[in-house]
Amino acid sequence: MSAFEPQDPDFEIHVRASFARQKLMKGIGASLTRVAPGEVEIELPFRDDLTQHHGYLHAGIVTAIVDTACGFAAMTLMPADASVLTIEYKANFVSPATGKRMIARGRVTKPGRTVTVCAGDVFALTDGKEKLVATMLATMMTLRERPDLQG
Amino acid sequence: MSAFEPQDPDFEIHVRASFARQKLMKGIGASLTRVAPGEVEIELPFRDDLTQHHGYLHAGIVTAIVDTACGFAAMTLMPADASVLTIEYKANFVSPATGKRMIARGRVTKPGRTVTVCAGDVFALTDGKEKLVATMLATMMTLRERPDLQG
Amino acid sequence: MSAFEPQDPDFEIHVRASFARQKLMKGIGASLTRVAPGEVEIELPFRDDLTQHHGYLHAGIVTAIVDTACGFAAMTLMPADASVLTIEYKANFVSPATGKRMIARGRVTKPGRTVTVCAGDVFALTDGKEKLVATMLATMMTLRERPDLQG
Amino acid sequence: MSAFEPQDPDFEIHVRASFARQKLMKGIGASLTRVAPGEVEIELPFRDDLTQHHGYLHAGIVTAIVDTACGFAAMTLMPADASVLTIEYKANFVSPATGKRMIARGRVTKPGRTVTVCAGDVFALTDGKEKLVATMLATMMTLRERPDLQG
Repeated sequence: MSAFEPQDPDFEIHVRASFARQKLMKGIGASLTRVAPGEVEIELPFRDDLTQHHGYLHAGIVTAIVDTACGFAAMTLMPADASVLTIEYKANFVSPATGKRMIARGRVTKPGRTVTVCAGDVFALTDGKEKLVATMLATMMTLRERPDLQG
Repeated sequence: MSAFEPQDPDFEIHVRASFARQKLMKGIGASLTRVAPGEVEIELPFRDDLTQHHGYLHAGIVTAIVDTACGFAAMTLMPADASVLTIEYKANFVSPATGKRMIARGRVTKPGRTVTVCAGDVFALTDGKEKLVATMLATMMTLRERPDLQG
Repeated sequence: MSAFEPQDPDFEIHVRASFARQKLMKGIGASLTRVAPGEVEIELPFRDDLTQHHGYLHAGIVTAIVDTACGFAAMTLMPADASVLTIEYKANFVSPATGKRMIARGRVTKPGRTVTVCAGDVFALTDGKEKLVATMLATMMTLRERPDLQG
Repeated sequence: MSAFEPQDPDFEIHVRASFARQKLMKGIGASLTRVAPGEVEIELPFRDDLTQHHGYLHAGIVTAIVDTACGFAAMTLMPADASVLTIEYKANFVSPATGKRMIARGRVTKPGRTVTVCAGDVFALTDGKEKLVATMLATMMTLRERPDLQG
């Protein structure tokens, strides 16, 4: 249950359409597994071609899925014609990103007209058990009146 | 000219070998264009399959190349048998990541026995002009006595 | 109820002794209101002499109390002879720091032998209601064998 | 010499007036030693009552002076009627904050209409030599049409 009231009744349609336009997410095999007011979840099966030099999933890929989850969590609370852009984020990497699949969860900490603050986590899922891999604190921006930018 | 004195005379060989093991870097088409004591540069030609929903390079990819540049910049100053791991980073995205190619530059701000602090920037290069896209502040860790981890 | 098992049975005594040595905390009128395994709470009555140019509590003071809460939260899980040092932190400021008093809560996200990751929040408390003012993600370091450093 | 062109010819007057309203800066004994387009410097003599549990200057105080330097660096490039607010920052602490005095330098990395990105450093000055103590990456916001907020 969420504490947030979306402004856009079609928030899920808009978030799913924007996610579908993220070619990187499709390319790496990520999928959008949950869209709720102020909360988005993305799953990514482990893939050997996305690894760094120790064979773990690259920090940039771990970051990409949790940034996307945070950005779209922010977007669920934005007006229908708004677009979301990442201003900045910080991520800590707390365990090696190994396992069958990764689950990134983004949630809104504080929505705002211009700036929305989000928190996110990435868990490695192996044999039904979740282990924290990374944690993020992110600042997202609402863009309005930009017909050149969708979602 | 660098202010840093490497402990490992073969630092460039070790960094290049570790970079070659990063399957993500190969997969996205990134190359290591400079390795100096405390400084590493990585180039990435723009690719449409690495984009987010506005058609810009995804923040996660921009982050991946500058994280890698920062991590290997730290590694140039580590002992020969050490391995580098990203503890955390923070990145600000200041202009859309568009253009022919991206150049990520990582440099050591403060080397340490266990923890090394690095700064990095990503520039979009178009018609010979560089434009700042993102800036990073990162914390890297030296791992020793881990024969299971290379580089 | 905490998920963490302290190594040091006297963790609260050690944390309280270290807090008492923080002259800044005493000077600004902060007090340690809760010490539990992996969790520390600090309260600070609002004071006009700690403000920035809009009359809100200065971001540096908000940061000081939540950094201290996070650092001592990390220390509750460290060995008895260890000392804690802040490697880095990131904080977002989400509402003006006004109100009768501030409550900073720090908690351990992931303990580690050398590096502990913590999260913290600061709330403004007015008429019994808490409002989020700031949120932090921090990296703390365990220092051992440093008889020159206490706590 | 700065690469930035201020919009407000009286930027130094406005920054100095805002600094004078920061009661915390006065209380800790900080002074504004340089105001240039996109650059601000603040000095703070070491004071024992501002320390943490090891006797070093508290991270929150180190952060307060470099946050202030970054915020006012951003303000030098804002319109005359604008006010500056810290959205967020991240700081790394690289050496103990000891020494006779601290010098915090903030500079604009990328100015923007709404969001300005700044970088800052704090140096400990002892016997004429500067040693890096902390480094910051910060996001500042321009506030307009807020007659209730000055500077």
